[in-house]
Amino acid sequence: MGHNGVIADPADMIGYVTEPRDAFHGRALCVVRPGRAEEVAGVLALCNDAGVGVVPQGGNTGLVGGQTPDESGEQIILSLQRLDRIREVDPASDVMTVEAGVILARAQQAAEEAGRYFPLSLAAEGSCTIGGNLAANAGGVHVIAYGTARDLALGLEVALADGRLLSNLSKLRKDNTGYDLTRLFIGSEGTLGVITAATLKLFPLPRSRATALVGLADPQAALALLTLAKARAGAALAAFEVLPRIGVDFVLRHLAARDPLASPHRWYALVELASPAESGTDELLTDLLAESLEQGVAEDAALAATLEQRAGLWRLRETLPEAQKPEGGSIKHDVSVPIESIPAFLAEAEALIQRHFPGARPAPFGHMGDGNIHYNISQPPGADRAAFLARRDEMNELVHGLVRKFGGSVSAEHGVGRLKRDLLRKVKDPVALEVMRAIKQALDPKGVLNPGKLL
Amino acid sequence: MGHNGVIADPADMIGYVTEPRDAFHGRALCVVRPGRAEEVAGVLALCNDAGVGVVPQGGNTGLVGGQTPDESGEQIILSLQRLDRIREVDPASDVMTVEAGVILARAQQAAEEAGRYFPLSLAAEGSCTIGGNLAANAGGVHVIAYGTARDLALGLEVALADGRLLSNLSKLRKDNTGYDLTRLFIGSEGTLGVITAATLKLFPLPRSRATALVGLADPQAALALLTLAKARAGAALAAFEVLPRIGVDFVLRHLAARDPLASPHRWYALVELASPAESGTDELLTDLLAESLEQGVAEDAALAATLEQRAGLWRLRETLPEAQKPEGGSIKHDVSVPIESIPAFLAEAEALIQRHFPGARPAPFGHMGDGNIHYNISQPPGADRAAFLARRDEMNELVHGLVRKFGGSVSAEHGVGRLKRDLLRKVKDPVALEVMRAIKQALDPKGVLNPGKLL
Repeated sequence: MGHNGVIADPADMIGYVTEPRDAFHGRALCVVRPGRAEEVAGVLALCNDAGVGVVPQGGNTGLVGGQTPDESGEQIILSLQRLDRIREVDPASDVMTVEAGVILARAQQAAEEAGRYFPLSLAAEGSCTIGGNLAANAGGVHVIAYGTARDLALGLEVALADGRLLSNLSKLRKDNTGYDLTRLFIGSEGTLGVITAATLKLFPLPRSRATALVGLADPQAALALLTLAKARAGAALAAFEVLPRIGVDFVLRHLAARDPLASPHRWYALVELASPAESGTDELLTDLLAESLEQGVAEDAALAATLEQRAGLWRLRETLPEAQKPEGGSIKHDVSVPIESIPAFLAEAEALIQRHFPGARPAPFGHMGDGNIHYNISQPPGADRAAFLARRDEMNELVHGLVRKFGGSVSAEHGVGRLKRDLLRKVKDPVALEVMRAIKQALDPKGVLNPGKLL
Repeated sequence: MGHNGVIADPADMIGYVTEPRDAFHGRALCVVRPGRAEEVAGVLALCNDAGVGVVPQGGNTGLVGGQTPDESGEQIILSLQRLDRIREVDPASDVMTVEAGVILARAQQAAEEAGRYFPLSLAAEGSCTIGGNLAANAGGVHVIAYGTARDLALGLEVALADGRLLSNLSKLRKDNTGYDLTRLFIGSEGTLGVITAATLKLFPLPRSRATALVGLADPQAALALLTLAKARAGAALAAFEVLPRIGVDFVLRHLAARDPLASPHRWYALVELASPAESGTDELLTDLLAESLEQGVAEDAALAATLEQRAGLWRLRETLPEAQKPEGGSIKHDVSVPIESIPAFLAEAEALIQRHFPGARPAPFGHMGDGNIHYNISQPPGADRAAFLARRDEMNELVHGLVRKFGGSVSAEHGVGRLKRDLLRKVKDPVALEVMRAIKQALDPKGVLNPGKLL
């Protein structure tokens, strides 16, 4: 495994046992950094025999503590960072084969160099890894057009709990020879096996792209605009993000941005169309905006005329979490509901929060096209930050209770990890939980894979 | 369950114990036809207790014997046909909830009546059921744009072997709360549970559509055309089917069709673009064809100018299996290889077959956009039909051996069932088989679900 394969000095382990936000931390026996899939399998075989818990880790960017060991100091961290080869890019088959430790941005770039597009895109793309993206079934801003990480892999190489190596780096679009093990391991958060490599789908490079910020009266109008955009643009609809005025206010106040629209609106949608054709998206978006203005769905719209303007529109949306920080404590939720229910959910949530937390400021934003809202609530202005955050569980219960009422999910894209493991037991269909436990027991009978996570 | 719930008279069972082609048949204790999911679960609980094998059956159109009981007469057939309610169509969320026994064509129609599109489309759509489509992970002609049945469901209701009912009729596009049980049950051919209902994704209705038949020199040209079509049309590429001249000859000879192109070509591609926009696909396809003619990729092309002409082009492709019948015995294979490898695979297969079966006539056709070729071989003209068919195993071994060499699948879309169960043991990664068996054991420890199928 080479001299860099094992880190046992506590000082050198700090970057592995805590995560960048310091929201989760723990202790580890050591960090093992194998360089090949067979070595990963070998480490698992040893740990399985010895009954030592293994915490797989990629770029250490997960938000639910899935990649952090517990406080016992008896688990090891299995870092996949050294498995960083792009094994092959096959543009004619529209597939690339990459190892788990490849940084997402590097995978995107490798695709682009071959004249192809790998559409997974999220805030952490400069440091998160493909293995982590798959283990956590990452989402991001292009799910509406391309699906989540689970939809973007054709096959996997996986080291199993007992050290067997499952090799299914398939380049096939269709293969009906048995159970879909690929999608079972994807999103299992390292509890069923350790992904060491994957074959990923590639797409044609978008050659034209059009982006607009649309001012809207309310979430109902956002839903109407989304429905119209899907009907007119179909698969060319590459992103449909929403944010409320208060979110725009936060960004304008703290981040030296300027309002792209002449007057304020209560809600906004960021709409992007993309197409492999050389042109056409500008015209399509212009027509769509004209129709939505005529129908009274939209109040106003700003179409990006330059790359710089497009980046400016995206910044409004993407810097919202950062702009929320100077506003004091905030309590966050990563939830989804059926798309049709978003307006009702937002209205009921607002009323509920005002009743229990007078003055608290919800700034819900996110991937409306997928039904996924990041329901973040800033503290009342001037209130005590610690006192507000101390009521986090109460707030969580209000929001998650409402999510369940609408048949939604309490973790739309960030996963379960340590953060929501206890919550999962309360909200998930008991039969589904039993089936999940039966599968876990079948594939990891000694429970050495990422103990205490998810289940 | 009502007076029609059980059929025990052998005469009345004939339509259930044999399949329409009579390729597979068996005997059954009885046919049970529950009308509600809870009744399905109740039947399974009883059979699990008694150790009686259960063969789930939908429209009885499967091609690999998955829906037929064995010859023991000790299994029951569990028909899902009476679970035929469309529970809800929710166009704003782009989801419909349908029961397992709903005929595919009826589901398509329900979507269309709500102004939406359900893209699953295959030859048996007038009689196959959604439950069967999901259990078998059906493919069809629009996989290139919309994926297989596995990609088209958001959630399932499943009766488990011991009679528990798993309820996850989710309308969510994103839900990262645990293992992907939905996709595990889809494609498991009734061996892990019995699907009783599903939430299915809906899409915008295509409002413009353009179709062309393109004459090509060889499969390499077909691959170049496919690559160009993906680059220019992206997600608007709704179908890319190929067929060889001999297939066109068969259709022209036996089915009173006419050749849409002025002179014969060695290979053909049927290319269809579709878009929710009111227009644009005709122009896009015209440009694509012009570019492919200029580049020497295509030799000639006929663009359908009317609905009738479009239907005529599709008939050429869809009637090929029927037109092959008067040519004598044929041996069929449902295989896939990486898209890039299709030309090499076809060349090597042709040479191999001529060496071992001089005069035999391969007429490979199908879903080139998915890498899925129906590699069907007609007997040599005038040869003895029975003698040719008697060498089926030998032919299968040649073709499947070559498929494996190219990293392909011996069952791209038809599944495993009874037909390919023994084959699976030989070709599948042994670790993948072990994992599949462990999951089967965990979910159906007494082995009552579709015994003798798949595993």
